[in-house]
Amino acid sequence: MATKKNKRRGIKIPHIKKPIIHNEAPGTVTYTGKKENVATKVEIIDYSKDRYHRVDSENIEDAFSFESSEHITWININGLNNTKEIERLGEYYNLHPLIQEDIVSTNQRPKMDEYPEYLYIVFKMLHYNENGDFINEHVSMVMGKDYVTTFQEADGDVWDGLRDRLENAKGRVRNAGADYLMFALLDAIVDNYFSVIETLSSKIEFIEDQLFDDDIEEDITQDIQILKKEILRIRRAVVPLREVINRLEKIDSDLIESKTQNYIRDLYDHIIQVSESVDIYREMIWGLMDMYMTTISNKMNEVMKVLTIMASIFIPLTFMAGIYGMNFEYIPELQFKYGYFVLWGAMILVFFGLLYYFKRKKWL
Amino acid sequence: MATKKNKRRGIKIPHIKKPIIHNEAPGTVTYTGKKENVATKVEIIDYSKDRYHRVDSENIEDAFSFESSEHITWININGLNNTKEIERLGEYYNLHPLIQEDIVSTNQRPKMDEYPEYLYIVFKMLHYNENGDFINEHVSMVMGKDYVTTFQEADGDVWDGLRDRLENAKGRVRNAGADYLMFALLDAIVDNYFSVIETLSSKIEFIEDQLFDDDIEEDITQDIQILKKEILRIRRAVVPLREVINRLEKIDSDLIESKTQNYIRDLYDHIIQVSESVDIYREMIWGLMDMYMTTISNKMNEVMKVLTIMASIFIPLTFMAGIYGMNFEYIPELQFKYGYFVLWGAMILVFFGLLYYFKRKKWL
Amino acid sequence: MATKKNKRRGIKIPHIKKPIIHNEAPGTVTYTGKKENVATKVEIIDYSKDRYHRVDSENIEDAFSFESSEHITWININGLNNTKEIERLGEYYNLHPLIQEDIVSTNQRPKMDEYPEYLYIVFKMLHYNENGDFINEHVSMVMGKDYVTTFQEADGDVWDGLRDRLENAKGRVRNAGADYLMFALLDAIVDNYFSVIETLSSKIEFIEDQLFDDDIEEDITQDIQILKKEILRIRRAVVPLREVINRLEKIDSDLIESKTQNYIRDLYDHIIQVSESVDIYREMIWGLMDMYMTTISNKMNEVMKVLTIMASIFIPLTFMAGIYGMNFEYIPELQFKYGYFVLWGAMILVFFGLLYYFKRKKWL
Amino acid sequence: MATKKNKRRGIKIPHIKKPIIHNEAPGTVTYTGKKENVATKVEIIDYSKDRYHRVDSENIEDAFSFESSEHITWININGLNNTKEIERLGEYYNLHPLIQEDIVSTNQRPKMDEYPEYLYIVFKMLHYNENGDFINEHVSMVMGKDYVTTFQEADGDVWDGLRDRLENAKGRVRNAGADYLMFALLDAIVDNYFSVIETLSSKIEFIEDQLFDDDIEEDITQDIQILKKEILRIRRAVVPLREVINRLEKIDSDLIESKTQNYIRDLYDHIIQVSESVDIYREMIWGLMDMYMTTISNKMNEVMKVLTIMASIFIPLTFMAGIYGMNFEYIPELQFKYGYFVLWGAMILVFFGLLYYFKRKKWL
Amino acid sequence: MATKKNKRRGIKIPHIKKPIIHNEAPGTVTYTGKKENVATKVEIIDYSKDRYHRVDSENIEDAFSFESSEHITWININGLNNTKEIERLGEYYNLHPLIQEDIVSTNQRPKMDEYPEYLYIVFKMLHYNENGDFINEHVSMVMGKDYVTTFQEADGDVWDGLRDRLENAKGRVRNAGADYLMFALLDAIVDNYFSVIETLSSKIEFIEDQLFDDDIEEDITQDIQILKKEILRIRRAVVPLREVINRLEKIDSDLIESKTQNYIRDLYDHIIQVSESVDIYREMIWGLMDMYMTTISNKMNEVMKVLTIMASIFIPLTFMAGIYGMNFEYIPELQFKYGYFVLWGAMILVFFGLLYYFKRKKWL
Ligand SMILES: [Mg+2]
Ligand SMILES: [Mg+2]
Ligand SMILES: [Mg+2]
Ligand SMILES: [Mg+2]
Ligand SMILES: [Mg+2]
Ligand SMILES: [Mg+2]
Ligand SMILES: [Mg+2]
Ligand SMILES: [Mg+2]
Ligand SMILES: [Mg+2]
Ligand SMILES: [Mg+2]
Ligand SMILES: [Mg+2]
Ligand SMILES: [Mg+2]
Ligand SMILES: [Mg+2]
Ligand SMILES: [Mg+2]
Ligand SMILES: [Mg+2]
Ligand SMILES: [Mg+2]
Ligand SMILES: [Mg+2]
Ligand SMILES: [Mg+2]
Ligand SMILES: [Mg+2]
Ligand SMILES: [Mg+2]
Ligand SMILES: [Mg+2]
Ligand SMILES: [Mg+2]
Ligand SMILES: [Mg+2]
Ligand SMILES: [Mg+2]
Ligand SMILES: [Mg+2]
Ligand SMILES: [Mg+2]
Ligand SMILES: [Mg+2]
Ligand SMILES: [Mg+2]
Ligand SMILES: [Mg+2]
Ligand SMILES: [Mg+2]
Ligand SMILES: [Mg+2]
Repeated sequence: MATKKNKRRGIKIPHIKKPIIHNEAPGTVTYTGKKENVATKVEIIDYSKDRYHRVDSENIEDAFSFESSEHITWININGLNNTKEIERLGEYYNLHPLIQEDIVSTNQRPKMDEYPEYLYIVFKMLHYNENGDFINEHVSMVMGKDYVTTFQEADGDVWDGLRDRLENAKGRVRNAGADYLMFALLDAIVDNYFSVIETLSSKIEFIEDQLFDDDIEEDITQDIQILKKEILRIRRAVVPLREVINRLEKIDSDLIESKTQNYIRDLYDHIIQVSESVDIYREMIWGLMDMYMTTISNKMNEVMKVLTIMASIFIPLTFMAGIYGMNFEYIPELQFKYGYFVLWGAMILVFFGLLYYFKRKKWL
Repeated sequence: MATKKNKRRGIKIPHIKKPIIHNEAPGTVTYTGKKENVATKVEIIDYSKDRYHRVDSENIEDAFSFESSEHITWININGLNNTKEIERLGEYYNLHPLIQEDIVSTNQRPKMDEYPEYLYIVFKMLHYNENGDFINEHVSMVMGKDYVTTFQEADGDVWDGLRDRLENAKGRVRNAGADYLMFALLDAIVDNYFSVIETLSSKIEFIEDQLFDDDIEEDITQDIQILKKEILRIRRAVVPLREVINRLEKIDSDLIESKTQNYIRDLYDHIIQVSESVDIYREMIWGLMDMYMTTISNKMNEVMKVLTIMASIFIPLTFMAGIYGMNFEYIPELQFKYGYFVLWGAMILVFFGLLYYFKRKKWL
Repeated sequence: MATKKNKRRGIKIPHIKKPIIHNEAPGTVTYTGKKENVATKVEIIDYSKDRYHRVDSENIEDAFSFESSEHITWININGLNNTKEIERLGEYYNLHPLIQEDIVSTNQRPKMDEYPEYLYIVFKMLHYNENGDFINEHVSMVMGKDYVTTFQEADGDVWDGLRDRLENAKGRVRNAGADYLMFALLDAIVDNYFSVIETLSSKIEFIEDQLFDDDIEEDITQDIQILKKEILRIRRAVVPLREVINRLEKIDSDLIESKTQNYIRDLYDHIIQVSESVDIYREMIWGLMDMYMTTISNKMNEVMKVLTIMASIFIPLTFMAGIYGMNFEYIPELQFKYGYFVLWGAMILVFFGLLYYFKRKKWL
Repeated sequence: MATKKNKRRGIKIPHIKKPIIHNEAPGTVTYTGKKENVATKVEIIDYSKDRYHRVDSENIEDAFSFESSEHITWININGLNNTKEIERLGEYYNLHPLIQEDIVSTNQRPKMDEYPEYLYIVFKMLHYNENGDFINEHVSMVMGKDYVTTFQEADGDVWDGLRDRLENAKGRVRNAGADYLMFALLDAIVDNYFSVIETLSSKIEFIEDQLFDDDIEEDITQDIQILKKEILRIRRAVVPLREVINRLEKIDSDLIESKTQNYIRDLYDHIIQVSESVDIYREMIWGLMDMYMTTISNKMNEVMKVLTIMASIFIPLTFMAGIYGMNFEYIPELQFKYGYFVLWGAMILVFFGLLYYFKRKKWL
Repeated sequence: MATKKNKRRGIKIPHIKKPIIHNEAPGTVTYTGKKENVATKVEIIDYSKDRYHRVDSENIEDAFSFESSEHITWININGLNNTKEIERLGEYYNLHPLIQEDIVSTNQRPKMDEYPEYLYIVFKMLHYNENGDFINEHVSMVMGKDYVTTFQEADGDVWDGLRDRLENAKGRVRNAGADYLMFALLDAIVDNYFSVIETLSSKIEFIEDQLFDDDIEEDITQDIQILKKEILRIRRAVVPLREVINRLEKIDSDLIESKTQNYIRDLYDHIIQVSESVDIYREMIWGLMDMYMTTISNKMNEVMKVLTIMASIFIPLTFMAGIYGMNFEYIPELQFKYGYFVLWGAMILVFFGLLYYFKRKKWL
């Protein structure tokens, strides 16, 4: 059975086609994600303690008119495939080509770059979509003296609560500067991580329930593997962002007011908590595999017991019957009047003797 | 058997409903625990070397009258769902909105925040309730110049020994300041961790005993899983508190007298010891799974041996009997007068020969 | 079976012939790779903002004439077995004997040595060849004031994109100095690591697909082992290079202009990302073994169930038939007219009873 | 079989009685060990270059008379349950209440406390008693200007070699100060760790021998578990003591002469070596479990092979015999004269055919 | 079967005799190795740029006459059991008693001690002897202003290449000082580690080949265990030496010239590379156990399939034959003329039906 493999001679992994190497000049602005047909939308919120003004547009230049205002401006751009627009904005705000590149490089890991006039922060917006698939959206943010620009791959984000607070002047945000807006944006991102973690936790419990359920028939190896990948991707978003927020807490920049520091420290607290949860769930998920293994072995044990009991009882009995099925000329027992019944008695004795033996062994 | 799964097409984990995202404004005071119907109780102990005065009230304002006194005041508040009361107290003592939020955020991890006029410390009170379930109560504490305020989710704590020492002027506490009171409160928390660890240790030994017991029939995977979760939750309470106490030992604050430092160092010693135990028990619990796996395999081995011995002995014998149950016209042995007895002899020989073989293999 | 081993008396590993110890004098220039018959080729690109000149030669001295020029010169040497040439070049550029040795020591790990007049950097060019085998080419680079010399084991590299940008004055490279050329060379190396990682990821998915496929018959242990070795070799190239680039970012050297620092920081970002991916894939590969183990056990479970069901049903039935095959003089049932049919009824009852039992146990 | 468990509803771990919480006032001197009926013995050795004087007493005050002497005094106290005596001594030597507490707190982990006038060091004396049980004695030491006081739980220690050197003026100890005495005491402790490790190593080899022995019948899971616990307890004694000695090497205290530093460095060397061994043996012990698992599986494989061979050979043969045991009116073969012998021939062919098959598969 | 063990009552590990505790006075020079009958040999090489003089002697005093010379002197001593000689030399060169002790303490881990007038370095010479056993020789070295003394346990080392370079004035060594000689000695040691690692790698591949070979019959657990121990012992020699060389690179001592630093950095490079290999091979060896486990399980699966197929096919057929072996008075089928042949047809159908079933399941 199973075809033999030549010892140490090549792998059976079929020829994998080589991926094309894209070694573009550094600073080339090329969108690397999958949302390639998204029309760019620009959402501009210009506010101060006493003012709230919102503009929705499809033209990135509409944002520029707010620059001179004395208010704080949040410019949110949805859609990154239109790289020309990004370059135009980058030119206007004087963003380094490498930053323009990172805005549209969806694989870029979370990080912060400090420039004299602005901070640039990359992070990931995580959620499970309606099919339960894990979604990882590349988002980045430029924070200057009186503006914050955010860049998303597509519509839909976790900032509706913040928009509501801005519009209705709830909380502290309308009374504070661009640094607090930046904090509030990150805070919503981290709060959302808590709910992603919660969903993951439900998935783990669902698999545990299956494991503890004696009737499980499915092979759940693949489910565990999917969970492993999800936790690794969450970790990849969370751990570098934790470092970013840690640096943000300690940064010495004119762009951040001292009273915002307390809020950033609170944020750091939360991302630490997310990251601790990630580590714990990671450990739990890895443990599921071992649990599954013992579950399989326990089941096999039970299968083997049934076989052993059935075979151990009926094979000897069959042998006894076989004896008296022999055709020897002279088998004295066969002539005994009650031979047949005596044998039945013996067989019943053997039957119950073996039952008792298995009972005592606790196999029954 | 087992329904096949389409390769790589979706997970069998059913649709998990998305948790609602609570992105409230930072500083919003919302109780996040499960003790939602607890009436707030306030316990005030005002003391000095020569004085001990205790007031029990349901009105948080009763505490304020003690502020101007020259004595030390311990205000213990049980019940956090009544957030209005917390906000009132926060206003009176000038607590930062983020601290007010953390007082009622039961998921907040242990931490310390230093403010010029007070220290704020979050920690967890752990115990096993009468059903053996692990309970994790969110507790926090504000320590100012001459007062300590503690916030618990509900009645019941580990501070009765301390109350007794305060009332009866035992030990050092009545002669010392608010910093020593804070130490004594934390000391009781950490002492209690030792007994939680001890309970956990008994549970581990109980499972070990089951494993070493040859008659074990239960599937103990689930028990081990529960232990894993308990140790992880204990760890989550202990490790950050260790960091807090470490910082407390090194802090440079007017609020802490130098002679209290020795006591905090002793406390640090103890929390280190708890945390070492946590690491060791964690390792033991993880090891239980491997032990269980070998136990299952050993059992299966024994099942297989019984089957193999029974089948290996009786199948050949049945074959021998089968031979002489054949109906060939001419089978010379059948005519031999003692053929039957000779065959019996042969079968007994085979029987003991195989017995001897298995004996020598140490399978019997 | 299996020949017994004498307890604790020698290993069965046959005599391994000792490798020859090469303790040459330090600084001895000996090529240690496998490309021993490669003719040395020299490729010289001399450029500035306004000039591009390329010379291909087989004579290393042709490079020397460009030294005095005011342009930037990239000298790429393919073929390291011709150590005399390397020594000649080393003498000309005044390279330390230990560097000359490292240029041809293919086992040298990635590192950077700083000398006052040049930087010396060792790294690895990785790719999968057309047979899917993993190839690891030893490459190193000397970067001086206005030249960069690169040393490869053989023809073929990942720098064609860069050559194109140099020739056609695309991007920033023609306007910048030798430090930017060094950066651009390393950038292409790191970009290529991303595609190596991608190929590895496809291989992992291929094995996962095999694991989730119920029909898998192959023993994939060896495939997993090959993947383990590949990821370890990739890790060995990536992790020390990460340290090199980290040092390069922080270096204080006249050879590197401040505006190139941003680019090196970007490069560091990318190598961090590669190295995170390496860690994740490493974890995935190690996990494959556990997955395979559960897969095997699941299969065995199914085999055992088939055996148990077949044996448990037919052994008792055979026993029943055996009973009435006995030759006792007096077996009343045998004389009953419909005895045979009654027995069939009983046997069918037993048959379906056992079927029902296994169905309820979900073994069917 | 196996009683089913309700999914996720309570643990089967029976109610564990809660340990009593001892939250005594910090500084309360309560003996927490098991040697509660040991009469306190005091051993006083007063020495200098030219003098050696030894006093044995049961009265702790006898030690005080030596304080004013210009010699070095070693006061060794055996028995800690008599806490009044400890307090008396503590008062006399002005020991901080927390130190008095730690002297009798047998759970206290190894540590060093520096006070201006003395150093206080806690450590563990380890040995295997005559039953092979692992014993862990709590010992601590106060080192002042010209005295060292040691506190043991009971008689019996590892310092007889040192007593001999003191009495007979061997080595350096009689010519040196209290700091060298402290070093010599710790040196004997660490030297003893080496022999504890050696005993542990013999135990590991004993279990390995059992594993490699084909006849092993015992379930050695429990033995491995005991070893795990022993190595964890040794580790718990060694690792913090390593930190203590490291600090001792770097301490800046008038109490330690510079020429003793070389000796402490040597001691540090040794404790590092012990701690490396502990890590290695720990790894070995954890590996034993995996080895045991493969051993069990190998055995099961052999059991299965015997079953498979016996069943695969005799079941088909029995079938063949069954054919000719049928009672059809017309079975032509039965009438052949040599039918019986032909069948035997066929059966022998099948027998050897299967034997050959199994031989080729290397199962025999 | 298997004798039961009393729960939690003692270990079955037999009484291990306690090792004797050797708590000698620190600084006692006692040889602790196994080469106790080696006659001490002294090899003296006195050289400068223009001079080479070699003396072989059995008298350690012969070395002293070279001290006053202006040349560099290498004194190599083979044989450490003759501790009197070591002490004489130690006295002459004024070596601290603790160093004299370490020279003959074969368990001493690699380390460096700095004294004002010399450096003392301990390291291990590793090799596989002709029986393939791993040998670990304790070697140490004292390096002073113009001499290096090396101490080996016995004849035979890795320094013949260096002796040749000294005698024939090859390389740099004759033109350099004692510091370069020290470097060259260590360089040869580290170069030799590469070949030890290479041998180990061959052993790992040999075991892998066995694992991938379908015919493996041996239990290779013991071989893997031996490899584990070897890699742990290599690691124990390499990791502390890496730290020594790291310190040597950064040391600020008059004994080491600045131009030797480059060479030491190169050496550090090499020991890092050795230590990386050790970590990788360690991981590979630990992985072998898991691979072996899947291999065993795959084999068992195949055994089970053979059993299942044989039993599942022939048990039902035997039952069918059993039916018509019954002796009921009235079994209609028995009277049918072609009943026997019809039954054969049915049996052949069942036979091929089951074969097809197993084929489709890919068990065949
Ligand atoms: Mg970038
Ligand atoms: Mg990137
Ligand atoms: Mg979006
Ligand atoms: Mg938040
Ligand atoms: Mg961990
Ligand atoms: Mg595992
Ligand atoms: Mg908070
Ligand atoms: Mg929180
Ligand atoms: Mg936490
Ligand atoms: Mg409470
Ligand atoms: Mg305490
Ligand atoms: Mg840990
Ligand atoms: Mg494991
Ligand atoms: Mg080198
Ligand atoms: Mg090298
Ligand atoms: Mg090349
Ligand atoms: Mg790049
Ligand atoms: Mg690693
Ligand atoms: Mg990790
Ligand atoms: Mg204490
Ligand atoms: Mg303690
Ligand atoms: Mg004692
Ligand atoms: Mg010692
Ligand atoms: Mg460790
Ligand atoms: Mg394992
Ligand atoms: Mg020493
Ligand atoms: Mg030593
Ligand atoms: Mg030697
Ligand atoms: Mg070398
Ligand atoms: Mg390690
Ligand atoms: Mg493992």
